[in-house]
Amino acid sequence: MIRTVEWRDNAVVLIDQRLLPEREVYRVYRDYRKLAQAIRDMVVRGAPAIGVTAAFGIALGMMQARRDPEATFARICETFASTRPTAVNLFWAIARMQKRFAATRGAGLAAVRAAMLAEAQAIYEEDRAANRALGHFGAKLLPRRVRVLTHCNAGALATAGYGTALGVIRAAREQGKEVSVLATETRPFLQGARLTAWELVRDGVPVTLITDNMAADRMRRGEVDCVIVGADRIAANGDVANKIGTYGLAVLARAHRLPFYVAAPLSTLDRECPSGEDIVIEERPPEEVTHCGGRRVAPAEVAVANPAFDVTPARFVSALITERGVIRAPYRQQIQRLFRAHERVR
Amino acid sequence: MIRTVEWRDNAVVLIDQRLLPEREVYRVYRDYRKLAQAIRDMVVRGAPAIGVTAAFGIALGMMQARRDPEATFARICETFASTRPTAVNLFWAIARMQKRFAATRGAGLAAVRAAMLAEAQAIYEEDRAANRALGHFGAKLLPRRVRVLTHCNAGALATAGYGTALGVIRAAREQGKEVSVLATETRPFLQGARLTAWELVRDGVPVTLITDNMAADRMRRGEVDCVIVGADRIAANGDVANKIGTYGLAVLARAHRLPFYVAAPLSTLDRECPSGEDIVIEERPPEEVTHCGGRRVAPAEVAVANPAFDVTPARFVSALITERGVIRAPYRQQIQRLFRAHERVR
Repeated sequence: MIRTVEWRDNAVVLIDQRLLPEREVYRVYRDYRKLAQAIRDMVVRGAPAIGVTAAFGIALGMMQARRDPEATFARICETFASTRPTAVNLFWAIARMQKRFAATRGAGLAAVRAAMLAEAQAIYEEDRAANRALGHFGAKLLPRRVRVLTHCNAGALATAGYGTALGVIRAAREQGKEVSVLATETRPFLQGARLTAWELVRDGVPVTLITDNMAADRMRRGEVDCVIVGADRIAANGDVANKIGTYGLAVLARAHRLPFYVAAPLSTLDRECPSGEDIVIEERPPEEVTHCGGRRVAPAEVAVANPAFDVTPARFVSALITERGVIRAPYRQQIQRLFRAHERVR
Repeated sequence: MIRTVEWRDNAVVLIDQRLLPEREVYRVYRDYRKLAQAIRDMVVRGAPAIGVTAAFGIALGMMQARRDPEATFARICETFASTRPTAVNLFWAIARMQKRFAATRGAGLAAVRAAMLAEAQAIYEEDRAANRALGHFGAKLLPRRVRVLTHCNAGALATAGYGTALGVIRAAREQGKEVSVLATETRPFLQGARLTAWELVRDGVPVTLITDNMAADRMRRGEVDCVIVGADRIAANGDVANKIGTYGLAVLARAHRLPFYVAAPLSTLDRECPSGEDIVIEERPPEEVTHCGGRRVAPAEVAVANPAFDVTPARFVSALITERGVIRAPYRQQIQRLFRAHERVR
């Protein structure tokens, strides 16, 4: 089992994803500010994992709180909200913690702390369960033998465990399907080479690593059956913000008549966000592009663009795989229906 | 002026492109076998530059020849022919040297050596002139203000000077046009980050570096007006083998209704090769993909694909820019016409 993020002995423990696959180092955080910085620095990344980490971080911050819990809580939430702008699971987790906090009004600090930890643990457990469930639904979409192209890392390392896109792949194998994976390295941060390849090699899944610019050629040669990716935010109309390069893969999948699937829990769906145009795209430091493996590879004077994400319009998405089932276009209506059914159940 | 390859004092001098942009190191070759190894190791790369280097290399080898010039010449040609399989300019240059060698039959070794050097120098000069000419023709295709996306390095460093795709950009600026460039870094060998960015920064051309997977997003945002790339081999039907990733850019350009231009001298056109399916694609060592900036970034056990080139079917090519003018589909007929006109002139 891959331990991406955990609560242990009143601390939050993260596997340092920047050091994988070379070294497996676990970092222990007892200060919520340092944990927020770890999110910024991409010690942990992946939209669901960021949400879970922030929830634990808020619980951690409240453990540190001595007096004026209202003001402290607000400050902690602000700190986490300012770490990364695109992954909506972060804001979703903060909102859930806020709701639970509001419900403890009048209780003592000990009760508030217990409630915060309980809520964070629930978010953690729900994310794991959601991945299992969406994996199960997604796996049914795949034929008995399938070659899946995936981008970035939407695996156990991007979630509380199991993964979204890689969750579908894991579930398909559990259903007895023969799955092989083409993993794009995913410049500039190389989550595909470093994380997805590492996860799949560990699990014994046949995986071939390619540079991002090889995907089209593999499709043309008929070596890809479908594309499955995760998401950082899905707008109410079904537009998908995900790791830079996702949009290009969606266009290429369409051109080669391949299904393009997005696997994400409901916590990634942002019903407040009308369309992809309204999603804030994080611009990361230029050094991620001008450097490679820690070494400068471009002339110092060159300008650089480094958006961490792009937006794939809903019309390129063959299906959205969630823990409540698989939905297809028209996405606005189907997303609304999904939430209504969800809310009825709750 | 960038000195990619030169004949100086009975030696071939190459700028070591593996060390750019960090260091500008010129290597002097007096042994043709070491020069052939330099081609294999990508000290020099780029189809036209490889052709010119091989021509100089054959002249160099004949300087070393002591007796039995026929056998020596054949061995030298074989050595260069085995360096890289895809760039047809290599085989074109060898064929020209063979023709000239055959014409010296019966002459003494001194005369043969002089003829070999003269032919290599002619190939060098013709390549420079071809780039100037195709640059001139290509520049006329561009609007007064234009944002060009280019891939890999089809610049002075890929030729005897001036460049093919970058030659078009240089000529457009000489024609007073406002050109800015988006350069893809071009994993795994990073010719875009290391070489194209370096050339353009040197020339004062506004250039923005992106990772390969950012191209689609830039197109969607309307920040690209056209794509211009070079070629390693163009089949008789107009199919283009070029740096891996080119085909994906061609599909993306089509999806965004952007012109996709290929700039190459006639020495890149292989009339013996019926279509892209017949082009041998070089597979390079997996370490180019598993390593980045000299450091391992992927788990040791992962499988890797590393084709150096891909094939773009002719239907994606808006125009082919050559030193004899610009041609458009139907390419088979237009390529034949181009050569017929060329042969009449000669």
